Amino acid sequence: MSTLIRPSGRTFDQLRDVSLETNVTRYAEGSCLAKFGNTHVLCTASWEKSVPPWLKGQGKGWVTGEYGMLPRATHTRGRREAASGKQSGRTQEIQRLIGRSLRSVCDLSALGENQITIDCDVLQADGGTRTASITGGFVALAMACRYLKAEGVISADPITKQAAAISVGVYQDHPVLDVDYPEDSRGEADMNVVMSSDGGFIEVQGTGEERPMTRAELDEMLRLAEKGCMELFEAQRAALG
Amino acid sequence: MSTLIRPSGRTFDQLRDVSLETNVTRYAEGSCLAKFGNTHVLCTASWEKSVPPWLKGQGKGWVTGEYGMLPRATHTRGRREAASGKQSGRTQEIQRLIGRSLRSVCDLSALGENQITIDCDVLQADGGTRTASITGGFVALAMACRYLKAEGVISADPITKQAAAISVGVYQDHPVLDVDYPEDSRGEADMNVVMSSDGGFIEVQGTGEERPMTRAELDEMLRLAEKGCMELFEAQRAALG
Amino acid sequence: MSTLIRPSGRTFDQLRDVSLETNVTRYAEGSCLAKFGNTHVLCTASWEKSVPPWLKGQGKGWVTGEYGMLPRATHTRGRREAASGKQSGRTQEIQRLIGRSLRSVCDLSALGENQITIDCDVLQADGGTRTASITGGFVALAMACRYLKAEGVISADPITKQAAAISVGVYQDHPVLDVDYPEDSRGEADMNVVMSSDGGFIEVQGTGEERPMTRAELDEMLRLAEKGCMELFEAQRAALG
Amino acid sequence: MSTLIRPSGRTFDQLRDVSLETNVTRYAEGSCLAKFGNTHVLCTASWEKSVPPWLKGQGKGWVTGEYGMLPRATHTRGRREAASGKQSGRTQEIQRLIGRSLRSVCDLSALGENQITIDCDVLQADGGTRTASITGGFVALAMACRYLKAEGVISADPITKQAAAISVGVYQDHPVLDVDYPEDSRGEADMNVVMSSDGGFIEVQGTGEERPMTRAELDEMLRLAEKGCMELFEAQRAALG
Amino acid sequence: MSTLIRPSGRTFDQLRDVSLETNVTRYAEGSCLAKFGNTHVLCTASWEKSVPPWLKGQGKGWVTGEYGMLPRATHTRGRREAASGKQSGRTQEIQRLIGRSLRSVCDLSALGENQITIDCDVLQADGGTRTASITGGFVALAMACRYLKAEGVISADPITKQAAAISVGVYQDHPVLDVDYPEDSRGEADMNVVMSSDGGFIEVQGTGEERPMTRAELDEMLRLAEKGCMELFEAQRAALG
Amino acid sequence: MSTLIRPSGRTFDQLRDVSLETNVTRYAEGSCLAKFGNTHVLCTASWEKSVPPWLKGQGKGWVTGEYGMLPRATHTRGRREAASGKQSGRTQEIQRLIGRSLRSVCDLSALGENQITIDCDVLQADGGTRTASITGGFVALAMACRYLKAEGVISADPITKQAAAISVGVYQDHPVLDVDYPEDSRGEADMNVVMSSDGGFIEVQGTGEERPMTRAELDEMLRLAEKGCMELFEAQRAALG
Repeated sequence: MSTLIRPSGRTFDQLRDVSLETNVTRYAEGSCLAKFGNTHVLCTASWEKSVPPWLKGQGKGWVTGEYGMLPRATHTRGRREAASGKQSGRTQEIQRLIGRSLRSVCDLSALGENQITIDCDVLQADGGTRTASITGGFVALAMACRYLKAEGVISADPITKQAAAISVGVYQDHPVLDVDYPEDSRGEADMNVVMSSDGGFIEVQGTGEERPMTRAELDEMLRLAEKGCMELFEAQRAALG
Repeated sequence: MSTLIRPSGRTFDQLRDVSLETNVTRYAEGSCLAKFGNTHVLCTASWEKSVPPWLKGQGKGWVTGEYGMLPRATHTRGRREAASGKQSGRTQEIQRLIGRSLRSVCDLSALGENQITIDCDVLQADGGTRTASITGGFVALAMACRYLKAEGVISADPITKQAAAISVGVYQDHPVLDVDYPEDSRGEADMNVVMSSDGGFIEVQGTGEERPMTRAELDEMLRLAEKGCMELFEAQRAALG
Repeated sequence: MSTLIRPSGRTFDQLRDVSLETNVTRYAEGSCLAKFGNTHVLCTASWEKSVPPWLKGQGKGWVTGEYGMLPRATHTRGRREAASGKQSGRTQEIQRLIGRSLRSVCDLSALGENQITIDCDVLQADGGTRTASITGGFVALAMACRYLKAEGVISADPITKQAAAISVGVYQDHPVLDVDYPEDSRGEADMNVVMSSDGGFIEVQGTGEERPMTRAELDEMLRLAEKGCMELFEAQRAALG
Repeated sequence: MSTLIRPSGRTFDQLRDVSLETNVTRYAEGSCLAKFGNTHVLCTASWEKSVPPWLKGQGKGWVTGEYGMLPRATHTRGRREAASGKQSGRTQEIQRLIGRSLRSVCDLSALGENQITIDCDVLQADGGTRTASITGGFVALAMACRYLKAEGVISADPITKQAAAISVGVYQDHPVLDVDYPEDSRGEADMNVVMSSDGGFIEVQGTGEERPMTRAELDEMLRLAEKGCMELFEAQRAALG
Repeated sequence: MSTLIRPSGRTFDQLRDVSLETNVTRYAEGSCLAKFGNTHVLCTASWEKSVPPWLKGQGKGWVTGEYGMLPRATHTRGRREAASGKQSGRTQEIQRLIGRSLRSVCDLSALGENQITIDCDVLQADGGTRTASITGGFVALAMACRYLKAEGVISADPITKQAAAISVGVYQDHPVLDVDYPEDSRGEADMNVVMSSDGGFIEVQGTGEERPMTRAELDEMLRLAEKGCMELFEAQRAALG
Repeated sequence: MSTLIRPSGRTFDQLRDVSLETNVTRYAEGSCLAKFGNTHVLCTASWEKSVPPWLKGQGKGWVTGEYGMLPRATHTRGRREAASGKQSGRTQEIQRLIGRSLRSVCDLSALGENQITIDCDVLQADGGTRTASITGGFVALAMACRYLKAEGVISADPITKQAAAISVGVYQDHPVLDVDYPEDSRGEADMNVVMSSDGGFIEVQGTGEERPMTRAELDEMLRLAEKGCMELFEAQRAALG
């Protein structure tokens, strides 16, 4: 195991520059442009005074996520999903992850019969788009909840905790934090970790790409993810003022 | 016919503030963020070293346009077209318009067997998204052509003229230039005009929304469109340096 | 600019032989077989005692258009849209045009909560199918309105004016009226014009195919369209008796 | 079992007025407007100088059928299949039947690597559209084969026999020939029979709608179908001159 | 006409080994694993306390059939229909046949506003999957009806008769009973016959694959089908106890 | 934290009865009926002498997974995915997981330009269908590889290790092994773990359903999964003889 040199020059446990800019669109009830280095995701929260049919009449709300990537967000242009007539399995998998993650830190009863849709649209991608989506999507969600409370739509803020996400990986046999595209495309393994601000693990999705992960690597990757999420919770609090 | 007061306070022949910012994405061969007031469209030009099957072997290239709108680009969230499984008739109509317009100012033989796709994604909408798409899309296209020439992919710049577009309308019985959403939703008629920088009309698409247009109104709308496009050609030249 | 010889031998401002035959199907509330030379379109008007969901309870009706082409209406067989699983962008664009045009001459309040669907099916195509569809579709619509009034479904005829459409083009640098397929495939520009019988312009859709149109050409094309539509209004009145 | 009175006044073994008009479209290699009473089907045969991929290189041709119904061919308007995005099970079932039936009287080797598509579009429906489609489709196919032979595309006529089809049913406990819509909607059973001109049965598709058929009824229905098809073969020969 | 030797060694009027095993799944209201030799179809009956929208409020129930084939039920793997995005014409044709056949032996009024869906999933195919589906599907349906009666959902058993189905064919110019895959792929003709236990014919679907069938062959095939169905009715009664 | 009583009466670290029956279908190159208690999955391996287009000419093979559930595999009937026209996000997510997992224990170069498709069809579901699919799918894959080697298609067995999968969860605040449906529907968290027989972790997918997981719970769940997979590797070796 040689000394680790990351393509970006970062140390093994260093995040990329993170920026969470709020109020970036004119119409949405909450919005956040999340940047993790060269990965830029526009997150908006949209409120509807209704819930999906299967939830009607239970006095509870719903939070859901949608995800998309502009065709030229990547090195080579990808086909527009609207043109191909369906969302890929990858897109659906990410949407389900965003929705589950954000619902886990929201008291749906306190939300009343309201739905909030978090749209995460990737303007530019350099690895970690789903973790930036969750981290920025939380900010947009929290802003929309504040707005609904201020407007008198709901009486209490349904947000119970913060949620943030980061990717960790194994690159040249070293566990590393916040994997970017050059590392992701040549790394041995990667894992997306979603955490709550009380230190709990909401989601853990790890894959051995080139080889299985050892138990020791898994343990270190979880530790790095904890460190990274703590820094992201800090950034979220700063963004939300 | 009362004195005209436009919701925006503009005079009848005044454009909104127009901004054409270039080099806004990291990967595309050409890019332009076109702003017509609160209408913001991200235009990227993507190069592929191939042409559609029906054009193969003719030594000619192709320019095509794609159009999309982020779900919360508007006052109320629209359904993601990728989720609904197809592009609306409106989207396809706009895409065809963008493609036709830009091809008409590009020498496809000079382009060789290369394809350039202009993606126009509306980040925020306040009326006139298709005209902003064409005007900004031209800038992205021109930049991509310069890039291809600089890289030696093509030997001559295929751009023959500039193309720009503007909407004109009839609002409270007055022909007006550069219709925004408040005017569009309450106006009597509107028309999208695409022009070439030699003063020719590439496309004219007028609709009497509330009532048919008179011949006199048509004539004045065409005159206003000419004035507006001349200003846009100026802005394009400034953006392209 | 040489002397104009049209492939059909017509003069520059001459329509093809136009025939608008009514009562051509057994079941429809109104029907018209519109022939513009070798272009034959079967137009039927179908009444439903309901309106689209978004219009319910407003006391207003709706008129909508659908368009189709038999697979062998053209020189080479086209793919059946029902088999390809979707309507092309061109089909949708034409359908939207037919609907907008016919609604603009119909008082939707006088129609009550009734919907009339105008189906325009091209049996044989030789250019100008959309203008024949609108011209014949108006006849079918007017017949259906008379039928509804005679049956006591509505108390007043909702038709406020006639609507007719014609194509004009630039062929060998001459503006010409009623473009057929040989002219359309080799012409420099073409424009579809929909007019109301009071001389207003409902829709104007012009495209420079080979080169942009000059302002002078635009003006002459609009003048020719006015002449052609006046003749079509006459034919419609004759057909409706 | 009471005396039979058919809604149309026909005797139990009487066909409707049958008309097979040829050369009804300008472009198709063969065409026939088949009328069985008020059921009108436009059949066209289109030639392509190629075969489906799975048949390539075997020196054999292909004959296939497509079927459609104009939205207002029936009492109440049906939804356009192109708009609903797929062909119904019924449409596909009929298409498969038309194709199988016509291939069974065509020597595909003699056809060489050519494909003929028979489009059967129902302009007006009053029962028996699939049998009219096969009967008229055969005429269109035979004309197209003659055309290909005359043009030197093929050296021998691939048609080996005639194919015709008729429906038979049980109406008020009586077997009857050539079921129209009023009988079909209230009858006990119906059966579509496709025959070859040498007296063979190509397809037999019978369904007990209100009750199962007895063996005696089956036998009589087959006998009636034989009689009807013999008359249709005569009409086909007259149409083909 | 040579002496017949069937690939399976069976006599011309001999069924394959038939087995109808009940209660093969844990959840369905009725289930039957139908084996006709190497053709294995899992049939389940599922009850829903509702009917399709168009049947609501009429006090009647509905029975419908669905059919599927596991991708590797056959010699070569077939594409999963869920992946190809639609059910083939063949699948829909079979589903319609199953539904019609089973409804014809069920008193839908006695069923009340309940729907029973019969799923027929082919685990292994060796010819005759649709006839095994109907024969086994009837057993599953009858069991579900008994269950609903025992549970007090309905007061009387809606089953009026048994329904069973068998295929017959012409193989080497001999009519034969219960066609398996080797015979089907090389036979001259085949016919699926659905009968009711009172000797009636519910469906008869015969096709001349290699040549038309003679009337004499048709008659003998119907006789063989009667014999086969009588044996299947016996097996159904044994299975239902 | 009370004493744990599992609905099934199992101890916290006890698997359900596991059965891996091979050679269960007549046609597939490899097959295994995997039963984890009442969860029954039919896994087949199908060989094709070709690879996906993007892999052509590289001398490497491919292994892919497909997943389906019979409509009545569950307590209430689910809609057939082939009828709804698309595979759900859940299905696609599982398919991607199966494919990734099995490819990770297969030397694709040793496989040559061959593709093996593992179909996993759930006949009956009681929790853990994806882990049973992977565990049984590995057996089917290994059998197919042996078959290809025996037939001389490949010269060396490409299987490098075994792959097996098990679910673990948190139920009433206790980590438990091999979660069944009653536990899954009421548990706090669950995690699917795919391991290789050398003790590596191929995939780890954990979700806090009712609450986030603590780090201590994560650690114990991973330990239980290791124990369970070791027992499954034993069962696979026994099945493969």
